Amino acid sequence: MACRSPYPCGVRTIDWVDGAIEIIDQTRLPDETVVLRLTTVDDLLDAIGRLAVRGAPALGVAGAFGVALAAATASGAASAGTAHAGTSVAGDLFQQVERIATARPTAVNLARGAMRAAAAIDRGPAAVLAEAMLVRDEEIEASRAMGDLGADLVTELCGPAARLLTHCNTGALASVVDGTALAVAIRLFQRGQLGLVTASETRPLLQGARLTAWELGQAKVPYRIAVDSAGPFLMARGEIDAVILGADRICANGDVINKVGSYSHALGARAAGIPFICVAPESTIDMATAAGAEVEIEDRGAAEVVGFGGTAVAPLGAPAVNPAFDVTPNHLVTAIVTDRRVIRLDRGERP
Amino acid sequence: MACRSPYPCGVRTIDWVDGAIEIIDQTRLPDETVVLRLTTVDDLLDAIGRLAVRGAPALGVAGAFGVALAAATASGAASAGTAHAGTSVAGDLFQQVERIATARPTAVNLARGAMRAAAAIDRGPAAVLAEAMLVRDEEIEASRAMGDLGADLVTELCGPAARLLTHCNTGALASVVDGTALAVAIRLFQRGQLGLVTASETRPLLQGARLTAWELGQAKVPYRIAVDSAGPFLMARGEIDAVILGADRICANGDVINKVGSYSHALGARAAGIPFICVAPESTIDMATAAGAEVEIEDRGAAEVVGFGGTAVAPLGAPAVNPAFDVTPNHLVTAIVTDRRVIRLDRGERP
Repeated sequence: MACRSPYPCGVRTIDWVDGAIEIIDQTRLPDETVVLRLTTVDDLLDAIGRLAVRGAPALGVAGAFGVALAAATASGAASAGTAHAGTSVAGDLFQQVERIATARPTAVNLARGAMRAAAAIDRGPAAVLAEAMLVRDEEIEASRAMGDLGADLVTELCGPAARLLTHCNTGALASVVDGTALAVAIRLFQRGQLGLVTASETRPLLQGARLTAWELGQAKVPYRIAVDSAGPFLMARGEIDAVILGADRICANGDVINKVGSYSHALGARAAGIPFICVAPESTIDMATAAGAEVEIEDRGAAEVVGFGGTAVAPLGAPAVNPAFDVTPNHLVTAIVTDRRVIRLDRGERP
Repeated sequence: MACRSPYPCGVRTIDWVDGAIEIIDQTRLPDETVVLRLTTVDDLLDAIGRLAVRGAPALGVAGAFGVALAAATASGAASAGTAHAGTSVAGDLFQQVERIATARPTAVNLARGAMRAAAAIDRGPAAVLAEAMLVRDEEIEASRAMGDLGADLVTELCGPAARLLTHCNTGALASVVDGTALAVAIRLFQRGQLGLVTASETRPLLQGARLTAWELGQAKVPYRIAVDSAGPFLMARGEIDAVILGADRICANGDVINKVGSYSHALGARAAGIPFICVAPESTIDMATAAGAEVEIEDRGAAEVVGFGGTAVAPLGAPAVNPAFDVTPNHLVTAIVTDRRVIRLDRGERP
C-alpha cells in the first residue's frame, strides 16, 4: 500500500507487517529511530507499559492489532493441538483480550480498539485482523480529515502563512500518521501555507521538545522549541497567529481537558487576540460530562517534576504537585475541529 | 555579629569573613552546600562568571567586597614594594575595579557596588572595606523592609494563611539574607501567617526547583514544586491566594520586566481574581524607561532550552527561542513592594 506518512516511506508509528505489530519505540526518540517488532501479546503489553507506544489513537490501533495477534496465535495453537491442558483455546483468547484491553486503565481507546477486533473472533483470525486493519485505516482517515478541516480553518482565521504554537505531542507518534493538531500543521506545510511552528516543550515529560520537535524535523517543517511559560509572552510579542493543540476529553459544554499548560496558552491567546483551536476526533467528545469541573484530574506524583530522565534537579525528597491535565473553559476556545466538523465555540456553537 | 539568616547560623549567601569573601557556591546546590572562600579578585571573577554567585543584590555586594579585596591586596603590595615594574599601585587597583565592575555586563548592581566601594579608595583599604560592609548591611536592611511591607500587604489582601505562588529565585541566594519576594514568604512564615508556597520550577534554568526549593527547605517553610505551566491552572482550581515574585526592572508606568513565565502567572492571577505582587528594591525602578515595550529582551540561545539539567532532550541541532525575561503590563500588577513603600497599581498609583 502507498505510504501516507510524512516520514521516510514505509515508517508508520504503528502498523501490521508480515504477521506482527511494528512500532517506533518512542522511548528511544529523538536519539534513535528504532522499529520494534512485537510478535507476542507479552511483547505488546511490555511496549504499552513502558510508553514505547502512547497516544490515545495509537493505543486504539495497538489494542486492535494486539487482539489480531492473540487470535492468530490461538488459531495456530488449536491447529497444533498445543492449548494448555484444562483450558480451551477460546478461554485463553478471552484472557488475552482482557489483558490487552486493561493494559492502561485510563486510555479508553485501547479497550475500544481491542473490543472492536474481539467482536470478530467468532469469524476467525482473518476477520479479526481485517477489523484491526479497519481500525487503523479509520484512524488514518480521521487524521487526514482533521488535517484538511483544520488547515482550512487556520487559513481562514490567520491568512496564508500561519505561525502556530502547539503543546505536547499530537502528531503521528500519538496516532498512526499525521495526528490531530500536528496533522493540521503538516497539512498547512504541504499546502505552502505555514509560517512556523513553535513547539512548547511540555514539562514535565517534554513530549513537545522530544517528540513534536522530532516529528517536525522529520517532516522538514520549520519549527522552534520554547519553554512552556514563554508561550503567552511570544503571543503578546506578536510572534504567534494561533494556538493549536489536541484534547484528552471534550465536555458537552465545550470545556477542553488537555495536557497541563493548555490553559495558560489559552489565556495568552485570549490576551493577544489570537485563535485557540482544539483538534481531536469525535470520539474525544464526552457528552456524558457536562463541564470540565466534573473531571477528576490525575496527579502523577512528584518524581516527574523534580527531575527528568533520571536527572534530579530539586532537593532530595522535595514535594511537588503534578496535575497531568488542565481545564480550558469553553469561553477561551475559538473552535474545536474533529474528523467530521468544525465547532465554532466563538459563535456560540457547542458539541 | 548576630546571624539574621533563616539558615543555620553564620551562613550567608555572601559575606566578608576574616579578610576574604565567602559565598555559598550556587552551582553545587541543591546537592551540596559548599562555602567558597575567595581570597583574590581572580577567584571572585571566576565565581561570578560561572554563576556561583548570582542575583542582582548579591552581585552588588560581591562588587563592593571585590574592590575591598583589591584595595587590601594593593595596600599589602605597596608595603612590601612588590608592585609590578612600570605600573603604579593605584593604576593596578584601578584596573582591578574595572574588571570587577564589568564582569557581567547586564548586572548594573555589580558595577554600582564596585563603584561605591571604589569611591573610598583615597581614604585607604579600611575605608573601602567599611563602605563595602555598608553595601552589605543596606542590602540586608532592604530585604528586611521588603519582607515586612510585603507580609503586611499579603495578610491584608489574602488573610492569615496565605498560599503563595512564586517564580524563579528571589531568596537569600539572590541577595544576602531573605531576598525580595521570598523574604515576604519567610516573614509570613515567621509570623505564623503562611499557608504554603508553590515554587514554580522556572525553566529553562530551574532556579525555582533548584534554589527556591532548597531555600524553603532550609528555612522549614512548607512548599511544593510545580511545573511552570501548571501555575495558572492551580490558581483556577483555587489553590493559590496570591502570586508574589521579583523584578529585574520596573518601568515608569509600572510594567514589570522579570524572568520569563511571570506574565503567564499574571494572566492566571487575573483570571482567578487573585493579587499579583512584585517585590523589588527601589533601585529596580527605572524611571528612564517609560514602558515595557521599550526594553530589549535578551534571548539566551537554544542550548538552555534543548536540554534539561545537563541532559539533552530535543533532537540534535533543534532550534529554540529563549527569551530570558518577559513583560507583565501594569494593568495585571496589583502592587509593587519596595524597601520603602507599597505602590498600589490596582488603585492607579504609579512608581
